[in-house]
Amino acid sequence: MNKNRLEAFSDGVLAIIITIMVLELHVPEEPTWTGLLAVVPTILSYLLSFLYVGIYWSNHHHVVQLADTVTGGILWANLHLLFWLSLFPFTTRWSDESGFAQVPVMVYGLNLLLAAIAFYILMRALVRHQGADGALAQALGRDWKGRGSPIIYVVGIVLAVFNPLLGVAVYAVVALIWLVPDRRVERYVARLDHDTK
Amino acid sequence: MNKNRLEAFSDGVLAIIITIMVLELHVPEEPTWTGLLAVVPTILSYLLSFLYVGIYWSNHHHVVQLADTVTGGILWANLHLLFWLSLFPFTTRWSDESGFAQVPVMVYGLNLLLAAIAFYILMRALVRHQGADGALAQALGRDWKGRGSPIIYVVGIVLAVFNPLLGVAVYAVVALIWLVPDRRVERYVARLDHDTK
Amino acid sequence: MNKNRLEAFSDGVLAIIITIMVLELHVPEEPTWTGLLAVVPTILSYLLSFLYVGIYWSNHHHVVQLADTVTGGILWANLHLLFWLSLFPFTTRWSDESGFAQVPVMVYGLNLLLAAIAFYILMRALVRHQGADGALAQALGRDWKGRGSPIIYVVGIVLAVFNPLLGVAVYAVVALIWLVPDRRVERYVARLDHDTK
Amino acid sequence: MNKNRLEAFSDGVLAIIITIMVLELHVPEEPTWTGLLAVVPTILSYLLSFLYVGIYWSNHHHVVQLADTVTGGILWANLHLLFWLSLFPFTTRWSDESGFAQVPVMVYGLNLLLAAIAFYILMRALVRHQGADGALAQALGRDWKGRGSPIIYVVGIVLAVFNPLLGVAVYAVVALIWLVPDRRVERYVARLDHDTK
Repeated sequence: MNKNRLEAFSDGVLAIIITIMVLELHVPEEPTWTGLLAVVPTILSYLLSFLYVGIYWSNHHHVVQLADTVTGGILWANLHLLFWLSLFPFTTRWSDESGFAQVPVMVYGLNLLLAAIAFYILMRALVRHQGADGALAQALGRDWKGRGSPIIYVVGIVLAVFNPLLGVAVYAVVALIWLVPDRRVERYVARLDHDTK
Repeated sequence: MNKNRLEAFSDGVLAIIITIMVLELHVPEEPTWTGLLAVVPTILSYLLSFLYVGIYWSNHHHVVQLADTVTGGILWANLHLLFWLSLFPFTTRWSDESGFAQVPVMVYGLNLLLAAIAFYILMRALVRHQGADGALAQALGRDWKGRGSPIIYVVGIVLAVFNPLLGVAVYAVVALIWLVPDRRVERYVARLDHDTK
Repeated sequence: MNKNRLEAFSDGVLAIIITIMVLELHVPEEPTWTGLLAVVPTILSYLLSFLYVGIYWSNHHHVVQLADTVTGGILWANLHLLFWLSLFPFTTRWSDESGFAQVPVMVYGLNLLLAAIAFYILMRALVRHQGADGALAQALGRDWKGRGSPIIYVVGIVLAVFNPLLGVAVYAVVALIWLVPDRRVERYVARLDHDTK
Repeated sequence: MNKNRLEAFSDGVLAIIITIMVLELHVPEEPTWTGLLAVVPTILSYLLSFLYVGIYWSNHHHVVQLADTVTGGILWANLHLLFWLSLFPFTTRWSDESGFAQVPVMVYGLNLLLAAIAFYILMRALVRHQGADGALAQALGRDWKGRGSPIIYVVGIVLAVFNPLLGVAVYAVVALIWLVPDRRVERYVARLDHDTK
């Protein structure tokens, strides 16, 4: 089965998720700098979720390009990931509107955790389909980022019990870890190109 | 006529339908676990419609990939399907906001039924264009799922008259039947690959 | 310049326009059949605009597939068309919310008229780029539908002054004229296939 | 790394940005011409932002088609651009709802400025990846529009301090400068075609 529509549909869903969050941004009540300052936390929480969707899109792009074909199981592992990502606008908004209260921030972390697990399941499904010595299995290698992120999310969720803003800070750290470009796949592709010359 | 834009446009519409429903999700009134519990039915009804759109996307993907070219009639059979699918957010929201009252749940079932009929019409149009001995006609074979689903929807709609939640349960059963990966087309494609080797 | 992104971007915009209108659909106030009846005019106005966007997508699909390459001027003729189409949700909603009052129905007709003119400009730009003996010029031929529609819109707008619902009926007639599949291009493509065999 | 998904994702995001702004358009309060007149400034501010997103899409189209492959850095330069563009609906709405007050109009100009800088960064990243004698570097040449626009935005922002409407007028001038089709890349491509014949 051809992977083009999996990519096209995922691109569509991710494009919408990343963009509709801006619909949630309420304009400041007063047309002043003070008014703008009051919505800065909202804009920052939008930025954090924008970064997260961007990271998932970029990782999705890297991983799927190494796949050859997809199966029905992979389609559903992908839809499972998209489901948790589609809840980002909801948990982002709740965290923000509650003024970053304990429970909403924990739920936001849980959402991030479930999306990370879903991405892991998708990767495993792709690797299983391709075989352990396929390009994807080799490119991913030890994948310490993929394995470490869920642990840090759990730390963030626990910390949010005591101080929600500390939890948000921990979630932001995971985003920054991922923002450092993931050279694993790129390096692998470059090596592949080199070897075949 | 080329089928790429039919796929691209359908992917776009389905991606939007599956994603905008999350815009309907109102954040809990209180930032507590009790508050979250109160919106769980809403989230479950979102999940059910997400599954349905996912199933349609996956089936659409399977069926259209076996088509060669498309005609004006097929374009409109496709738009007809998209029309009923585009009403999912509306009927989902009504069911949920009414607390799963009798009439909205029946209308939701009717919406599911009409989408199933529209999908059937699209399949017939594709098969008719390709001929009864084309790849699609063979892959679909007896198609008991496609024929059985409308009957189960009607059962669900009738049951909703007496107990709306029972109706919703029946609709969910249809989703589960479809979630069991449809190996018909996949098996056919695999056999085709095998035969040509 | 390659036409793929023109198609992809137009598909995206049209997919969004056709789908976001459903966001405007307010759920009935009561969970009863009477409640549903009260929103039927809203659903019908949604249907009419859905048909119109579907017609434009289908015609766009036919016309652009006969084009070879696109120029900067064609990109902007296309954006000009998308602008008027993007106002459909706005004029549809106004007509509906005003209970189909005179001025909103006239403005809706004006919107349809301006979109038709924009489509005509796009077609001319494509034909001019390809030359008068190109595939597109031949396929369009006399194009009585494209020439006649603006005249019927003007009739509808004038009739709306006296009876808005009569105006809406006239607009719906144009949609029906276009729904009758436009066999011109399809026949031309079929003849082309035949001649080259 | 393949550039197709970068294009597809950007097309998706831009299509959504350009279209969701119309969701912000509130229908006139009265169904009269006077009512319509009252929303004309809103429609004009929608038109201005529509033009801006259209210009960015068109320039993005031109620039990316000259790129061969993309790197992780280019993906993020692109997401950075999309982030600022995604704020257009927010700053447009604020300007409009405040009746074009000083601060919102300045923030709108700042948004335009930051998007222009992000586009510049993306272009530099593409040129750096391709080399100074690549097709892109040559096609862009001196790029006086790209360099001049930020300066005019700053002028507009400063003028908005004294007269917000003057600021908006200056922003509109930049849009008009870009609307004049950018023949640089087109001419280069034409020359390239000619040379290889």
